[in-house]
Amino acid sequence: MSSIAVGSRAFDSITTPSGRAENVLGGSVTHFSLAASYFTQVRIVAVVGEDFTSEHEAVFKKRGIDTRGIEHAKGKTFHWAGHYLENLNEAKTDVTELNVFESFKPQIPVEYRDSKFLFLGNIHPTLQTAVRHELKDVRLTGGDTMNYWIQGFRNDLVETLKLVNILLINDGEVKMLAAETNLPRAAQKVLAMGPQALVIKHGEYGATIFFRDGAFGIGRHPFRAPTLPIDEVKDPTGAGDSFAGGFMGYIASQETLNREVLKRALFYGGVMGSFAVECFGTERLQSLTDGEIEERFQIFRELTHLD
Amino acid sequence: MSSIAVGSRAFDSITTPSGRAENVLGGSVTHFSLAASYFTQVRIVAVVGEDFTSEHEAVFKKRGIDTRGIEHAKGKTFHWAGHYLENLNEAKTDVTELNVFESFKPQIPVEYRDSKFLFLGNIHPTLQTAVRHELKDVRLTGGDTMNYWIQGFRNDLVETLKLVNILLINDGEVKMLAAETNLPRAAQKVLAMGPQALVIKHGEYGATIFFRDGAFGIGRHPFRAPTLPIDEVKDPTGAGDSFAGGFMGYIASQETLNREVLKRALFYGGVMGSFAVECFGTERLQSLTDGEIEERFQIFRELTHLD
Repeated sequence: MSSIAVGSRAFDSITTPSGRAENVLGGSVTHFSLAASYFTQVRIVAVVGEDFTSEHEAVFKKRGIDTRGIEHAKGKTFHWAGHYLENLNEAKTDVTELNVFESFKPQIPVEYRDSKFLFLGNIHPTLQTAVRHELKDVRLTGGDTMNYWIQGFRNDLVETLKLVNILLINDGEVKMLAAETNLPRAAQKVLAMGPQALVIKHGEYGATIFFRDGAFGIGRHPFRAPTLPIDEVKDPTGAGDSFAGGFMGYIASQETLNREVLKRALFYGGVMGSFAVECFGTERLQSLTDGEIEERFQIFRELTHLD
Repeated sequence: MSSIAVGSRAFDSITTPSGRAENVLGGSVTHFSLAASYFTQVRIVAVVGEDFTSEHEAVFKKRGIDTRGIEHAKGKTFHWAGHYLENLNEAKTDVTELNVFESFKPQIPVEYRDSKFLFLGNIHPTLQTAVRHELKDVRLTGGDTMNYWIQGFRNDLVETLKLVNILLINDGEVKMLAAETNLPRAAQKVLAMGPQALVIKHGEYGATIFFRDGAFGIGRHPFRAPTLPIDEVKDPTGAGDSFAGGFMGYIASQETLNREVLKRALFYGGVMGSFAVECFGTERLQSLTDGEIEERFQIFRELTHLD
């Protein structure tokens, strides 16, 4: 069923120990939509500037992604430049030019209004809230956020969280949001703010999904998925959004939502994240095959499977 | 089959956010032997001082642990005092009084010489090497080490590693030993130094076992086991040695060594580590039942199991 993703679209300039890429396609909906496109029909809502050409748009159309929700504004596309040192878990920002993204007000095309799954990428929580209110037919909402909103716009974010079914967030963010250093306790505090489930991403150690008691009728035992130990992470940018794309895309592709679906979704999230980091930008996510995804899913499964 | 463990024995004074414990039983062979005793017959080699009473020894005898290798020396037992702040992964040492441990030369009782499994706890690598050479019948040697030996006694440690089949080590240590920040690459470098397998402990994120190509005839795909998200880690001291005890103890309890045994051993390592941190000192490890261990093993399995 159709999924809609709202978030940032950017051109990224990235330096890592493996090399450098200039002005490659980036932003949360970019990685999310490409990753999710292997599982479900994706519609995107974002804003771009005049430097975003039909050639750029073709990357998404080629993956069957609905780009009618891309607003073309006067000016330049959001530009982010950053680098990673040996610790690939932490991006150092060199340049943030918001450009047309600064005044982004998501406009939902009429044709998108029957979407059943919604992913709220990492944008201002009041924009996330407004989008969710506008989409009446949505069955399941996934959301992302970051330190910046947790620290500076906490009250707005708390309102958003009441509308989010599954929040995807990393270790540091969940601890900050809950003001609690113990991970499972932090998870329970955030679940009490609204979400039925919380996906906590642990970087190279995988991810854990925590459930609110009785959520989705499946009890509260957490579940953990690994990531693949990777010899060379070329570029970690977008790994989290690619994870979200695999996770939400797989859920949208299934007829029902139960514990087994959520478990597999967590694995598919890890699978798509592991592909994303193999190349700079979105290069790897543009050219996958279903066979490659299934093969890697099996590797992930074998990584923790006891007979 | 009988396992022999060589290492430190101590009295620990520990402060954590959950409270404080004074002069509780500690040291690497203490946690290791108690954890392993639920799986196999364990013999220990260590040194204690005059403050180590028959009451202390009774804790081990009650678990069927062979204490004939405990040397009683003049003076006081090794004493460690430390504390943990909110980050429970890092112990801050307040007091280290080596006492009788300073001149520890492991003496292997004649009755121990037919042992088939050996665990070399975290002691000077030249002592580890000497013990391994003395035990001719050993089939499998597991070893531990720490930053202190890696930085200051690297050449000695490199010699020890040639004699160790499975090295158990944490993320920071393996990266330091390999001088390499990427985990799988660091693992391969350390495997090239001698061990056939490497168990890397990730603290609250579980552990991964990496294999040298062709090791144990089972190929080189890594395997990962989770840990349980725990609401309150009361005292992390000894978690690594308890992990090693579950891991090595389970291996020693099995007739053959294959991939499935090593996978389960990794899970049992996590299980015993998760019990260890629930109480101060060795309190929890002294009073477990087989039923509790099996129940937790199933919880660990469910935590990552896809149908």
